[in-house]
Amino acid sequence: MAEQVSRFGAVSLDELPDDLRERIGAIAEKAGFVPNVFLALGHRPAELRAFCDYHDALMERETGLSKAERELVVVATSGANHCTYCVVAHGAILRIRAKDPQIADRVATNPWSVELTGRERAIVDLALALAVEPAAFRADDIDAARDAGLTDEEIWDVGAITALFAMSNRLAHLMSLRPNDEFYLMGRVPRS
Amino acid sequence: MAEQVSRFGAVSLDELPDDLRERIGAIAEKAGFVPNVFLALGHRPAELRAFCDYHDALMERETGLSKAERELVVVATSGANHCTYCVVAHGAILRIRAKDPQIADRVATNPWSVELTGRERAIVDLALALAVEPAAFRADDIDAARDAGLTDEEIWDVGAITALFAMSNRLAHLMSLRPNDEFYLMGRVPRS
Amino acid sequence: MAEQVSRFGAVSLDELPDDLRERIGAIAEKAGFVPNVFLALGHRPAELRAFCDYHDALMERETGLSKAERELVVVATSGANHCTYCVVAHGAILRIRAKDPQIADRVATNPWSVELTGRERAIVDLALALAVEPAAFRADDIDAARDAGLTDEEIWDVGAITALFAMSNRLAHLMSLRPNDEFYLMGRVPRS
Amino acid sequence: MAEQVSRFGAVSLDELPDDLRERIGAIAEKAGFVPNVFLALGHRPAELRAFCDYHDALMERETGLSKAERELVVVATSGANHCTYCVVAHGAILRIRAKDPQIADRVATNPWSVELTGRERAIVDLALALAVEPAAFRADDIDAARDAGLTDEEIWDVGAITALFAMSNRLAHLMSLRPNDEFYLMGRVPRS
Amino acid sequence: MAEQVSRFGAVSLDELPDDLRERIGAIAEKAGFVPNVFLALGHRPAELRAFCDYHDALMERETGLSKAERELVVVATSGANHCTYCVVAHGAILRIRAKDPQIADRVATNPWSVELTGRERAIVDLALALAVEPAAFRADDIDAARDAGLTDEEIWDVGAITALFAMSNRLAHLMSLRPNDEFYLMGRVPRS
Amino acid sequence: MAEQVSRFGAVSLDELPDDLRERIGAIAEKAGFVPNVFLALGHRPAELRAFCDYHDALMERETGLSKAERELVVVATSGANHCTYCVVAHGAILRIRAKDPQIADRVATNPWSVELTGRERAIVDLALALAVEPAAFRADDIDAARDAGLTDEEIWDVGAITALFAMSNRLAHLMSLRPNDEFYLMGRVPRS
Repeated sequence: MAEQVSRFGAVSLDELPDDLRERIGAIAEKAGFVPNVFLALGHRPAELRAFCDYHDALMERETGLSKAERELVVVATSGANHCTYCVVAHGAILRIRAKDPQIADRVATNPWSVELTGRERAIVDLALALAVEPAAFRADDIDAARDAGLTDEEIWDVGAITALFAMSNRLAHLMSLRPNDEFYLMGRVPRS
Repeated sequence: MAEQVSRFGAVSLDELPDDLRERIGAIAEKAGFVPNVFLALGHRPAELRAFCDYHDALMERETGLSKAERELVVVATSGANHCTYCVVAHGAILRIRAKDPQIADRVATNPWSVELTGRERAIVDLALALAVEPAAFRADDIDAARDAGLTDEEIWDVGAITALFAMSNRLAHLMSLRPNDEFYLMGRVPRS
Repeated sequence: MAEQVSRFGAVSLDELPDDLRERIGAIAEKAGFVPNVFLALGHRPAELRAFCDYHDALMERETGLSKAERELVVVATSGANHCTYCVVAHGAILRIRAKDPQIADRVATNPWSVELTGRERAIVDLALALAVEPAAFRADDIDAARDAGLTDEEIWDVGAITALFAMSNRLAHLMSLRPNDEFYLMGRVPRS
Repeated sequence: MAEQVSRFGAVSLDELPDDLRERIGAIAEKAGFVPNVFLALGHRPAELRAFCDYHDALMERETGLSKAERELVVVATSGANHCTYCVVAHGAILRIRAKDPQIADRVATNPWSVELTGRERAIVDLALALAVEPAAFRADDIDAARDAGLTDEEIWDVGAITALFAMSNRLAHLMSLRPNDEFYLMGRVPRS
Repeated sequence: MAEQVSRFGAVSLDELPDDLRERIGAIAEKAGFVPNVFLALGHRPAELRAFCDYHDALMERETGLSKAERELVVVATSGANHCTYCVVAHGAILRIRAKDPQIADRVATNPWSVELTGRERAIVDLALALAVEPAAFRADDIDAARDAGLTDEEIWDVGAITALFAMSNRLAHLMSLRPNDEFYLMGRVPRS
Repeated sequence: MAEQVSRFGAVSLDELPDDLRERIGAIAEKAGFVPNVFLALGHRPAELRAFCDYHDALMERETGLSKAERELVVVATSGANHCTYCVVAHGAILRIRAKDPQIADRVATNPWSVELTGRERAIVDLALALAVEPAAFRADDIDAARDAGLTDEEIWDVGAITALFAMSNRLAHLMSLRPNDEFYLMGRVPRS
């Protein structure tokens, strides 16, 4: 079916305020296409700006979790939340960051039982606890992560990324946001 | 029990970067105290800045939902998510905005069955659908809101505020964030 | 909204049989008002009488749990069951019994993660297990309470109060029972 | 396995206060045995007395729902709550009251989809709504029952019996209450 | 109510292909009646044949779990799945295999908390984990069964029987399959 | 991680009985590899034979649902059940059958809200009702499918395939069955 980008329409890059056009334009240049989320949020520039700032503050941070681990949190919680846009888009990034063409499908389909290293399992268990049953989140969950060797900075990263994508997933569900075609194949086949 | 502000500690206003100290300082001056969420997020200034920007873009917006309706979305979804900080803090604001000393307790305790006007019920039902069962969110949910007279801008507001507090609630659960004492009584007794 | 006391109407004190009028009258005299639950159950005097008897047998008992601990069980399970009448009315009593103006909001909003003493946590965990997932209740739940130092008499109190309010909560949901205005503020401000 | 009557022990008929010994004795004489619930609650005479009063006020009531319909509510909700004592004991009574040797097994195993008359289905649907998801109980549930022809008195009966057995089921789970052997066969074979 | 055998009709023994008529006929001769499941699946002989083959491969296997233990898995998971046909029909077989007239009602009504031997509890816990929350099934579940002394062959039996009745239960729900009258009483009364 | 094929080991094609070696061999020849499920079930030839028979009876059937629609049922319910093997393996087949490189990821990630044609939506809704909440399956679910134009034969197909994969999914969870590498890319890129 010819699915629309969003239930609430989408802007073109040209319609964005200068700072956002430049910022999103740089992403588009690197990726080869404009990820739909930016065009779909574009009708609310202040919200899009805060979204990009929050995303970058957590996903581009240099210390703490590795880039692949950050994407692992995103794909695991987006899988648990059944968010198609985030699973497809961040699944692509996870494949690239982890240099593993299968990891995104395995993590997104079943984050609870996918085989992972001990550290990755601790990260994903912490993220799932906060994503799916936040009311039952207790000191025990923090302690289990510490026991697995995560620092408090890393625990914060896991929790804050989980929280950010609790928001992103719901925005995507609200819009019925369509993933760009390009994401589906990224990181699946070796570049020749 | 002498509960700490956050599992991850809290900064003082003085420790914040200039722009944030000024921004949070202005809020504190108006409220008479510094809401704990700002001090607890203060160890990550970039995240706090994005948090404030996102919050203001949605909660201070002049058109669309009324201020009281925006707080209604926050309290209903925070109640469904069992988030103590957001229920207590935004419950206080809702009481003030709605000029109703009972509404926050009634909405937070049971957002599903609390008696509301038709428009408020449509707002809360839309918010709960996205907050609690996002995977099952469908065009039907949007249509029901439109049938109740909400515009697409208002529907976006409901959805985006729900999404923002899906994040905020989880940050508060992560930190076991303690509400300021002042919030508990605000809006409950008439100012003389 | 001008909400009715109950979907099924309410009697006045005068309409009750003598024994109940006297009994409820004494409560009203002490409280300063007639709690709505009595007027709403009044159309079925035999049921109201049994309700009062069961309530008093468990909530006025002199040995075992303290009065504040009994109310803690009520507020925790009524919070988990999202029962507005019981949260507002017994929240008021808990504030008074525990001499803590914040405890009711904190326990009712999130009984699973609220910070409590070890003994209180054991009481609340036992109550939640029986209130929310009774089918999965096992000897392990009893053992955990015993390990925390509860006697079998105290364990019975926790379980029986939880059971009584599983009933009360559902009666209140059936009636959409409205809490009296007076309960909202009781125990929140120090008496001068 | 030689299962005990209750985790908390059981009294003998002789150990009960006079009024209860007489009252339970009359039941035992009619049934041919003392139902375990009375002996297991006997260590708390005031609670047992209130339990019997509440039970009789609702289950022995002459107007409104038929006796068989009252037991239908008990078996349906006790099945949904997975309460072995109540399913086995009240299943026996339902078989006798409804003069149907199969109805209890069918209703208890799956109250949601068991084939029933329209009136019975309305009764069971109302009961299940209140028993299983009380927080989501709304005026719609009442309206559906009215549309099926139930009077407000009958709706109250359904709701109040559901509430009473929300309590009874949890007491039985608390005690791991063992059904008497006699209940298993009652009403299954025609008396010759 | 005169309930039909299946929403999709039922064939007679004569209408089955020769091999199935002979196979089902032998079962009927032994039981004294034709279990409805065979006549209800008869409109799809290839599916019925595979169903019988799968059933016999697992339920008639000579090594590993005892016959009674195999039926225990069926009744426990069918109870958790609220499948009336399988609870009634296999409940009858369990009563006979376990020589216990009460076990089926107790296991089917509440497989989570029914008192069992340690080995039986391990079998039922493993089965319930896979039946009810398959996505969360982990190596821990297998390890707990091994710790209770189950061999890998026995663990396979438990898992595969659970899987087979996840299918059978859903077929019965699809058809609203009616249990034969004969099953209700089988194994309840001692043969004289 | 170098994940094993199954927790319970795997046979080689040579170890299978003649009929199964031939049958699986033919599949392998066509696919270019032996799907792991056959080797993992191979230690129980009678079960593997019944599995293949049941699968072929439903998935190779010439009338009723199209081949793509049958795979749609498999991928939707396996997504809801979070079964990695079935999502990856049957996702590949669905892409090929539906000639759509994106459909499997979209359906598996969120079968509840993925945009589909009216007929496909009716098929998926029926399948999800039976897969996820079988106890609540009612005549209404059948009626909704009929209203969308499905014949009773097609409804049976949807229900029976759903039931078969309720079994297959649980077998895969039991084994922690590893999808073959080949499945991940099949049907994603146009053959040149």
